[in-house]
Amino acid sequence: MSSQTEGEYELPEDRLEESQPQCPFGVGGGCCRICYMGPCRVTDGAHGMDRGVCGATPGTVAARNLYREIAAGAASHADHAREIAEVLEEIADGGLSAYDIQDPEKLEAVAADLGIEAETDDENELAKLVAEAAIEDFQGAGETLNWLDRMPDEQREFLEEQGIQPKPSVDMEVARAMHRTTQGNDADPVHLLSGALEAGMADGYAGLTMGTDLQDVVFGRPQPVETEANLGTLEKDQVNIAVHGHSPVLSEIIVEMAEELEPAAREAGAEGINLVGICCTGNELAERRGIPLAAHSTQAELAVTTGALDAMVADIQCIWPGIGDVIECHHTKLLTTTDYVRIPGAEHVSFDPETAEADAREIVQRGIDAYEDRNSRQEYDVEIPDERASAMVGISEDYVLEVLEAASPEDPVAPVVDALEAGQLKGIVGIVGCPNPKQRTADMTERLIEGLLAENVLPIVTGCIGHVTAQAGYLDPARTDELAGDGLSEVLHALGNAAGLDGPLPPVWHMGSCVDNSRIGNLVRAISEGADVPTRELPVAASAPELIAEKAVSIGAWALTLGLPVHTAPTLHMDQSEEVSRIMTEDLKGITGGYAIQEEDPDAAIDALVAAVDERRLALFDETGA
Amino acid sequence: MSSQTEGEYELPEDRLEESQPQCPFGVGGGCCRICYMGPCRVTDGAHGMDRGVCGATPGTVAARNLYREIAAGAASHADHAREIAEVLEEIADGGLSAYDIQDPEKLEAVAADLGIEAETDDENELAKLVAEAAIEDFQGAGETLNWLDRMPDEQREFLEEQGIQPKPSVDMEVARAMHRTTQGNDADPVHLLSGALEAGMADGYAGLTMGTDLQDVVFGRPQPVETEANLGTLEKDQVNIAVHGHSPVLSEIIVEMAEELEPAAREAGAEGINLVGICCTGNELAERRGIPLAAHSTQAELAVTTGALDAMVADIQCIWPGIGDVIECHHTKLLTTTDYVRIPGAEHVSFDPETAEADAREIVQRGIDAYEDRNSRQEYDVEIPDERASAMVGISEDYVLEVLEAASPEDPVAPVVDALEAGQLKGIVGIVGCPNPKQRTADMTERLIEGLLAENVLPIVTGCIGHVTAQAGYLDPARTDELAGDGLSEVLHALGNAAGLDGPLPPVWHMGSCVDNSRIGNLVRAISEGADVPTRELPVAASAPELIAEKAVSIGAWALTLGLPVHTAPTLHMDQSEEVSRIMTEDLKGITGGYAIQEEDPDAAIDALVAAVDERRLALFDETGA
Repeated sequence: MSSQTEGEYELPEDRLEESQPQCPFGVGGGCCRICYMGPCRVTDGAHGMDRGVCGATPGTVAARNLYREIAAGAASHADHAREIAEVLEEIADGGLSAYDIQDPEKLEAVAADLGIEAETDDENELAKLVAEAAIEDFQGAGETLNWLDRMPDEQREFLEEQGIQPKPSVDMEVARAMHRTTQGNDADPVHLLSGALEAGMADGYAGLTMGTDLQDVVFGRPQPVETEANLGTLEKDQVNIAVHGHSPVLSEIIVEMAEELEPAAREAGAEGINLVGICCTGNELAERRGIPLAAHSTQAELAVTTGALDAMVADIQCIWPGIGDVIECHHTKLLTTTDYVRIPGAEHVSFDPETAEADAREIVQRGIDAYEDRNSRQEYDVEIPDERASAMVGISEDYVLEVLEAASPEDPVAPVVDALEAGQLKGIVGIVGCPNPKQRTADMTERLIEGLLAENVLPIVTGCIGHVTAQAGYLDPARTDELAGDGLSEVLHALGNAAGLDGPLPPVWHMGSCVDNSRIGNLVRAISEGADVPTRELPVAASAPELIAEKAVSIGAWALTLGLPVHTAPTLHMDQSEEVSRIMTEDLKGITGGYAIQEEDPDAAIDALVAAVDERRLALFDETGA
Repeated sequence: MSSQTEGEYELPEDRLEESQPQCPFGVGGGCCRICYMGPCRVTDGAHGMDRGVCGATPGTVAARNLYREIAAGAASHADHAREIAEVLEEIADGGLSAYDIQDPEKLEAVAADLGIEAETDDENELAKLVAEAAIEDFQGAGETLNWLDRMPDEQREFLEEQGIQPKPSVDMEVARAMHRTTQGNDADPVHLLSGALEAGMADGYAGLTMGTDLQDVVFGRPQPVETEANLGTLEKDQVNIAVHGHSPVLSEIIVEMAEELEPAAREAGAEGINLVGICCTGNELAERRGIPLAAHSTQAELAVTTGALDAMVADIQCIWPGIGDVIECHHTKLLTTTDYVRIPGAEHVSFDPETAEADAREIVQRGIDAYEDRNSRQEYDVEIPDERASAMVGISEDYVLEVLEAASPEDPVAPVVDALEAGQLKGIVGIVGCPNPKQRTADMTERLIEGLLAENVLPIVTGCIGHVTAQAGYLDPARTDELAGDGLSEVLHALGNAAGLDGPLPPVWHMGSCVDNSRIGNLVRAISEGADVPTRELPVAASAPELIAEKAVSIGAWALTLGLPVHTAPTLHMDQSEEVSRIMTEDLKGITGGYAIQEEDPDAAIDALVAAVDERRLALFDETGA
């Protein structure tokens, strides 16, 4: 942390301290604010009411609260996917100059999986049909979500038998969630949570998977690429522009315009333009373009306090309003770009894909202007921390499958199955989400990952956990031997060899942004279908060890529908209801096969996750008689 | 209140007492629970943080909270409208035996207002087109909401100039609201509240107005009808079946089946079947069929404690889960019927319009069975309170317009304008919403209504406020002279005369259920267009004097977009933010023309509402030089 931050600015950890003690009813899901008779603080515990004014039980209240969190997450990812679906449609219509289809193979693969065929070989015709199918998933004229075809059939049918099936539109899914959870409406915890799972499924496919699919079509699938991470990637003598948020639609064009405006930056006295990424926009640019991962969402304010950042460009989501306060003491421009997202203190540059290049040029120019302002004002020292780690990112699911195919052309999943059977690999854990100041002090993510690696469990990371692991050096193949247990290390070497690399794959696989959790889903599906094992029986788990956003809860709900054990810390907002806690951690096993694991202590989380995957691994090889 | 309730059962007022003191951050909109770094308690006041952990200000937090409340309300009314839109479509397709188009004139009027023309004179063709236009408003394939055509053009265009315009689908409106308000996304209070107004507009047209329009088409427009109100409408020796919730789609068929099963009830030893209404399902049946208004939502548990209620049939919304507790000590069956609404303790009878008659018959039969159970068990005395008031309901907007036309065929709104100019009528206040136990002890609604009447302000009521006023006798034309001020009394006599009644119109006009707030909107529109005065300049206000539901907040947001002063008690969840309080009570005047009035004291509320309408009335006749 920059020494400038001490005392001068109020940063997340300061505000977290100020927030203590936090309300136990909010933390435990027992706070109900959905009507004007309350708010009510209900609990199964000793201190509080056992019913709200309307008679709602702690179970009703906690289930409604969780359902709304998940609906908000699904809504967020739906808007994310909607943007790229509309861009693809406009590309197909010939209406966009700044974009094209960079990955026609992915387009064909997605179309095939959706059962979409064009009448001609015209790429734009196919793109149009795929875009229309996508947009239909927000409108709901069809029978069901088109993108549900991207779910493993076996698990989808298993859930259908349990009555869990999303509505034909993700927007309707969200609207229905809000209606069901309003005062005096749906009140049965099991029923509410089953609705919440449907919202999670809708998110997983019409949000995450659609978002990744279409971003890959337009911008290309990631391949492994070397980059660097941490605030040390800022450059004192360059125009530093950070892209922050979640969407590559603007930032991909900013990459181009930053190149175009290099001469203007030099004229302004800079050595060039240093484009870096924050949060998931950073992950998107890192996995496709090798752009440095400067900071995760929780460090965005810290990036401003270096004094080196000239512009922070915000698109959507996880852009904390605290940034608006901290820029007041700096020359840094905070630029919002999405018309429905405004932040006090920011300047707004309205971004439209139809005028993408002009908009991106304007944004980069504002960064150059701010650089000039920085130099002329000289109000404070630029202090860039000397922290900079090497990272291999872009380990997409398709890359992994290519490597597996290279290793075992006849039966690509055999290396995975064999390694599991031999115990070289105990399982896979997708480790996702945000860096929460509550867990940062305990190095929750770092300890969890080191513990899993030592136990031969492979961590696959996305989102801001990708930043945390990159900064810790876990994405560096040079550290595979040091960090991974012997069995896992052998597997990573063998795969590195099959991939034609000089050494092993990195100990932790960076699979992209948080919408790219879909990639983990795709990999799990490929293993499930290749090995003919239901996803709910695979030794795969998910963990959000430092959960912040409602989106992460929604992603977790989706993982539960795939039948995975899902660990979160902090614990989900449900401790005030014994019933909801029991449903989520126990009863769900009989419904989706998945279940929630609640452990805030890193060592306990390691134990629980290792036990969860190993239990499935052992059952798998017992049952199949292998 | 039945003496049985004392001490034996925990009723709303007991639970309200138990909830004290309530959390001031929840009450004031300063509680943020949208992420796992919190919950945070933020405030502009002295006690609490001035920023959330993410840096969110009290303004950001309160604006997000209000926006989500309004989105939940819009989602609720959207689902309500969706049900009847789908029923109309199926009628048009010839797929429903239990329903038909009872009001083809209304169908034609709605179609004409939407600019929909059929190619032939076939009623079903027109119905199909109207239903499709309705369903399109949930899908969003169009440019804008079709039902926005039902808003006064002048005000709609005025809002468009301010950038306030709903999205093409109400589902998308809700999903966008949830996305915008998630952690790290939209954070600007003005911008958030402008989104909240858009959600309110979407509710007002694609929720409320569409719901009423299509219910009128299928079930007919209300005309004045005499009925009775309060728990005294239960009959000891009959099978008492109460329909509770909001939708007439099931309950209209229950009316028919209750008639059909009269013989079965007699065979079971009852004198007959006594069908009564609770909450807005009650209002729907009262305004069209004269079915008694037995109880408002807050009395539903009390209805069970009489021991006389055999079945309570729940469709959607405002069915408090406390009913599930209180039936445990009674023979009463609580029957949920909507597949997405379940309540612990209820039995579920899945209702589908395609099998409406069989489903309704099953429900009535369960009531008869429960009556037999009541008689055979004899576990407690049936104690029906001796409270029963006469009420004239069904004063729909079209009836009012008919009466005005009868009074003044050349210029139907002239009687209203003349009465306003003369000061006989100072203004009109729509008094809507729920009976909140917080305000019940102060007789908030009764005192407000008596105060307004004395000041020659006409109250038009809907929803559960309709029940409260019916129980208080305010819907009885026999009380017009006693309650209304001299000027208003003259107006009500003149209109009664024009209507061909023996006496005056009732002092308070019951205009239906809470979706029928659209009727007040239609009346305001007719006056605005007839008198050529923008709605934001008319001496009309709205009040939810005992607000409970998020739906009421959403309806209030819609009224704000019509430019009306909107009073609520309890005060909106915004006191912890000076900024949001100022925007809502002051700044909004410059945006929509409307503004929020916050008064929890009945006398202060009377003064504020009289001042609000009279200020506009005086300005109107000053400005027009009349």
